[in-house]
Amino acid sequence: MSSVYTGNLTVAIFGQSHAPAIGVTVDGLPAGLPVDPDALQRFLSRRAPGQNAWSTPRREADAPEILCGLKHGKTCGAPLTAIIRNTNTRSGDYENLKDIPRPGHADYTAQVKFGGAQDADGGGHFSGRLTAPLCIAGGICMQLLEHEDVHIRARILSIGSVTDSAPFDAPVAEKPFPAVSDDAAAAMQAEIAQAKAEGDSVGGVIECVVDGLPAGVGEPMFGGLENLIARAVFAIPAVKGLEFGAGFAAARLRGSENNDPFRVQNGRIVTETNNCGGIPGGIPTGMPVVFRAAFKPTPSISREQDSVSLSRMEHETLVIHGRHDPCIVPRAVPCVEAAAAIAVLDAWMGRKKELGYAF
Amino acid sequence: MSSVYTGNLTVAIFGQSHAPAIGVTVDGLPAGLPVDPDALQRFLSRRAPGQNAWSTPRREADAPEILCGLKHGKTCGAPLTAIIRNTNTRSGDYENLKDIPRPGHADYTAQVKFGGAQDADGGGHFSGRLTAPLCIAGGICMQLLEHEDVHIRARILSIGSVTDSAPFDAPVAEKPFPAVSDDAAAAMQAEIAQAKAEGDSVGGVIECVVDGLPAGVGEPMFGGLENLIARAVFAIPAVKGLEFGAGFAAARLRGSENNDPFRVQNGRIVTETNNCGGIPGGIPTGMPVVFRAAFKPTPSISREQDSVSLSRMEHETLVIHGRHDPCIVPRAVPCVEAAAAIAVLDAWMGRKKELGYAF
Amino acid sequence: MSSVYTGNLTVAIFGQSHAPAIGVTVDGLPAGLPVDPDALQRFLSRRAPGQNAWSTPRREADAPEILCGLKHGKTCGAPLTAIIRNTNTRSGDYENLKDIPRPGHADYTAQVKFGGAQDADGGGHFSGRLTAPLCIAGGICMQLLEHEDVHIRARILSIGSVTDSAPFDAPVAEKPFPAVSDDAAAAMQAEIAQAKAEGDSVGGVIECVVDGLPAGVGEPMFGGLENLIARAVFAIPAVKGLEFGAGFAAARLRGSENNDPFRVQNGRIVTETNNCGGIPGGIPTGMPVVFRAAFKPTPSISREQDSVSLSRMEHETLVIHGRHDPCIVPRAVPCVEAAAAIAVLDAWMGRKKELGYAF
Amino acid sequence: MSSVYTGNLTVAIFGQSHAPAIGVTVDGLPAGLPVDPDALQRFLSRRAPGQNAWSTPRREADAPEILCGLKHGKTCGAPLTAIIRNTNTRSGDYENLKDIPRPGHADYTAQVKFGGAQDADGGGHFSGRLTAPLCIAGGICMQLLEHEDVHIRARILSIGSVTDSAPFDAPVAEKPFPAVSDDAAAAMQAEIAQAKAEGDSVGGVIECVVDGLPAGVGEPMFGGLENLIARAVFAIPAVKGLEFGAGFAAARLRGSENNDPFRVQNGRIVTETNNCGGIPGGIPTGMPVVFRAAFKPTPSISREQDSVSLSRMEHETLVIHGRHDPCIVPRAVPCVEAAAAIAVLDAWMGRKKELGYAF
Repeated sequence: MSSVYTGNLTVAIFGQSHAPAIGVTVDGLPAGLPVDPDALQRFLSRRAPGQNAWSTPRREADAPEILCGLKHGKTCGAPLTAIIRNTNTRSGDYENLKDIPRPGHADYTAQVKFGGAQDADGGGHFSGRLTAPLCIAGGICMQLLEHEDVHIRARILSIGSVTDSAPFDAPVAEKPFPAVSDDAAAAMQAEIAQAKAEGDSVGGVIECVVDGLPAGVGEPMFGGLENLIARAVFAIPAVKGLEFGAGFAAARLRGSENNDPFRVQNGRIVTETNNCGGIPGGIPTGMPVVFRAAFKPTPSISREQDSVSLSRMEHETLVIHGRHDPCIVPRAVPCVEAAAAIAVLDAWMGRKKELGYAF
Repeated sequence: MSSVYTGNLTVAIFGQSHAPAIGVTVDGLPAGLPVDPDALQRFLSRRAPGQNAWSTPRREADAPEILCGLKHGKTCGAPLTAIIRNTNTRSGDYENLKDIPRPGHADYTAQVKFGGAQDADGGGHFSGRLTAPLCIAGGICMQLLEHEDVHIRARILSIGSVTDSAPFDAPVAEKPFPAVSDDAAAAMQAEIAQAKAEGDSVGGVIECVVDGLPAGVGEPMFGGLENLIARAVFAIPAVKGLEFGAGFAAARLRGSENNDPFRVQNGRIVTETNNCGGIPGGIPTGMPVVFRAAFKPTPSISREQDSVSLSRMEHETLVIHGRHDPCIVPRAVPCVEAAAAIAVLDAWMGRKKELGYAF
Repeated sequence: MSSVYTGNLTVAIFGQSHAPAIGVTVDGLPAGLPVDPDALQRFLSRRAPGQNAWSTPRREADAPEILCGLKHGKTCGAPLTAIIRNTNTRSGDYENLKDIPRPGHADYTAQVKFGGAQDADGGGHFSGRLTAPLCIAGGICMQLLEHEDVHIRARILSIGSVTDSAPFDAPVAEKPFPAVSDDAAAAMQAEIAQAKAEGDSVGGVIECVVDGLPAGVGEPMFGGLENLIARAVFAIPAVKGLEFGAGFAAARLRGSENNDPFRVQNGRIVTETNNCGGIPGGIPTGMPVVFRAAFKPTPSISREQDSVSLSRMEHETLVIHGRHDPCIVPRAVPCVEAAAAIAVLDAWMGRKKELGYAF
Repeated sequence: MSSVYTGNLTVAIFGQSHAPAIGVTVDGLPAGLPVDPDALQRFLSRRAPGQNAWSTPRREADAPEILCGLKHGKTCGAPLTAIIRNTNTRSGDYENLKDIPRPGHADYTAQVKFGGAQDADGGGHFSGRLTAPLCIAGGICMQLLEHEDVHIRARILSIGSVTDSAPFDAPVAEKPFPAVSDDAAAAMQAEIAQAKAEGDSVGGVIECVVDGLPAGVGEPMFGGLENLIARAVFAIPAVKGLEFGAGFAAARLRGSENNDPFRVQNGRIVTETNNCGGIPGGIPTGMPVVFRAAFKPTPSISREQDSVSLSRMEHETLVIHGRHDPCIVPRAVPCVEAAAAIAVLDAWMGRKKELGYAF
């Protein structure tokens, strides 16, 4: 299915880093949703490059043009397609990459897969730039979910060795560096600056929370909300790990520690703890859904690296020119929210299918 | 899509723990594959309960009956369906669970989702028993992949606080306790015995390796091999985390540490290291695919737990009777292999689609 | 996707004519539907062979065993699987067919497709017998739709040259020969008897009506109700044509004749005529959905036919032994209803997805 | 799935008649296919409006802009997206249609389905204009298939009461009016002119042939080539019937007349006749695939029609202004080819999945 997310809605992402445009079609959105273009633009701006010291100097307005799917500012039931023109491309930066693949990138596998017909410029379809249309789709899904009182928010949990241990009880979406603790944020930025100064890059972890999702959304087995979120989140390049609730730490716990006891609170069933990340057995309990995604350090670094010449099948030293983020994590925060929004809306619409029968 | 894995092949799992049968249909297998029933049975026996001190005393032969899809012992192109009769059910053990949901289980969410119409006996469709048909499907996919020289193997990496730090260079499938180091295995079993003695349970981590997968398998974005494996592995109840290669550890690395330099070896492109777990950007390089899945401790423990009565909406103390594994991890090893096999075969068949054109 | 119908619900059909069993899994049914096994059996009996002069003497009880998916007689939210054991198989009848393909059957194409690994006995997976699990799935979908006041009914419109021109305003499901006019039914049976006496077979047309479907069900373009019905109905072997409303006759009409004028009746919008078969542009108006399916004559005839020996690549004269229907049309009536029910329920559930938003 | 065709490739169509643009994404095309833009433009021009006396005077260049998916003029493995800007829209023509639905159109059902949020201008997403992106997708699929020596061609078989009984043995794609017999073409055009003069419209039948498709393509049951073609062809607005080979006429034949005897010809298996339209049991024999689609007369006519005011729920007389084709059939010929090409390429790629195993 490649670049298409299918389920109760379809999200088809297209484009290459240096093609005329990138974009996305979302098919199956409920009609009548007012889409707020300013809110969408603010959401996209959180991902946009070129804003600060820690991201690539490539500057793209990333202003989507909505080609169809709206009428009078509301979804009209037809597929919604939005595109972003690629205006600031410098293909010359990538001339040597088709023969000398960058370590950590998809250059080599794309070469094998597409037999040399791939578009290698700027990483082509494998470029992190493709997360812009992911954010368009996810941003619209988030607007719809907010109307249904479901809210999605993510934050930087760690960068390199620096962890923000503050609880996620303050909003970070408006912050230029979306961590909860300002002290941790400063330390994280210092870590990024240090890596950059060394011609290097650094990874990190993003934590995401979905509030307001009622119990009963999601399906058994392959259709669990964990599975849907995993399918969407692993579409973000650089994600190498995903865990829900206690996650890998749960593997070191006893059942008596890890189980979340049920309790009645204000007439609703809640759990005392939330080690399952809100999802036991694939289907949410109504507690917040909590997951974390691990991002590897940006593979494009300015240091000299070992690679090969594919044409000559021999060692080559590679120096990557071009413009790159020393740390992709800050810009990836809205991407994680967007991926979660697509999966959650899919599950939400699936839940609608089973409601309202009269048996 | 609930209990159906769709892609280049379809795997539809069905059954409840105490229904007449559980089973699976695999649609789209290439015709002509000799299915070795003895090898399949040996594979299933690795998952079967009741074999030893650390698993539930519920004993099921778990002997699948293949209803269709074979002719003269080979796949015949028609869908392959196999079932396992449920013979050893003791529904009385579960009488109170429909009103008093077990912490860590899907009892409560199933109640909400299906409006009380769910089959609660033994966990119904959410029971770990449904991993038996997963193993049937995956076991057959593995046989096919082995004919194509693709091999899948998993091992216990950790149980609770005990980690097996031996490299995965010896086969473990024949071992009753599938860890590499016998010393680690002994310590792990002691940890399980300790938990059991305390009326408790313990979690762990399983590592899985896919050898022989050529570069170029898998698709961009949502169709990456990571996404496919994630969709399949999170179908196993109790999986709460998944990471590829360095995984969460990569989030703490510099790019210069984490990138896998390319190298020419015996006329083939390889990488010096394999921090990406064989999959940079969703598409394998031809190096071994390596991933780890975190399993929470079995939620069913014999200790008293806090829960609620759904009918009276008040606190209830729950004591779970019935037969349970103090640690599900040893039996989950073939399940992880099976899930991987389904995803890998899906990707493999997808690769076939694009080969052999004459442009 | 082969033998799997996917959409808002999944229907996976499996089995070969002479395998141990045939059956079906329906995944995604709403929970809480009371399934009436007697009504289901009566529905299946309308398709079952061996009841009368015009069908094959092969007698199968066709009593499905429901393996899972029910609890206390109601759908429980888990996939529903039912199987029928194949008890009355006479494989010897088919010994020569693997080398000498029957004209009009899939023997030859199955041989090419599956490289000789196919199950040729009784037509294998391509046998008309596979419409029994289609009817199980469709019969259950019909029960659900009836609870929602949607009703599906089909009748024989023509056999060979005999057409039943009576309007479809009387029920036929209880009739052994489901035509409206008894005179036409007698003439049709005579035509079948004549063909049989000549060692031949005859085709016919089935008309199907869906009452009670509200306006707004179905999706644009590929997801129109016409497309869904077409996908399901062409799964019935022997269907070679499908038309909605005026169908092929509309191609000979003027727009002023064919357009269905809107009118207000009892506060509802209706159309004066129904030349569009209730579906203009893919989405029902609320008028009855009307379609017709053309069935070719049964390809298995007792007359000598020209074929080839695949092994010797030369002409062969084929005489088909075994037991065959001189006309499949009477038994296909419930199959058409079943196919329609699957498509209609799919569309119905899709409509649920878009209802109930608060924008 | 609404406007998305899914299978071994994905075709996602988007746009409304008066939105900024319409377009399509094709995901999953094999890489390395040279796309000939001139040939594509010629193909699209066959569908474009405003060329002659019998089509709408709305003139659109219908020149697609390919946004991505190509590199150096070849498919690069990434999704291919093309758009057409809507430049010649006159929304004022449609002002009354949101309240007074046009008979034969989807205006009313769109109103119900989308709760008034639909884009009614020019028929919105239900406009025949959406067949332009269908033709872009299909035209590219045809180019790929031609490289594989599979050729698709369609012709007008009848308009109203005039049938072209000439065999389809001469190419018609270059003709302005694509019928085989020039005499029939003249009579057909006279019929269209007559309808137009009367403020009316007329329907017709298109016949399509696929040459060069090898035996073995397609899947059983729901995945048969007939099913795939049906799903694609019914996406064309105005198609009300579809038949393969002898089609509805087969319902009046005896088995001995309808069966296609096998024969050896030049070392290949062929059939003497081709009443099955090349597809017995869903899977092609290697003979030409032949099908016919019935088109209703254009519902937009200039004559006064009876309709209702949805706001006042009372009778209204409707006069449709705007620009309309008195007969859509000539322009629909490439649309049928395009729909067929999508389905055939889907089946073709499915066949690739099962080839090349070493069992």
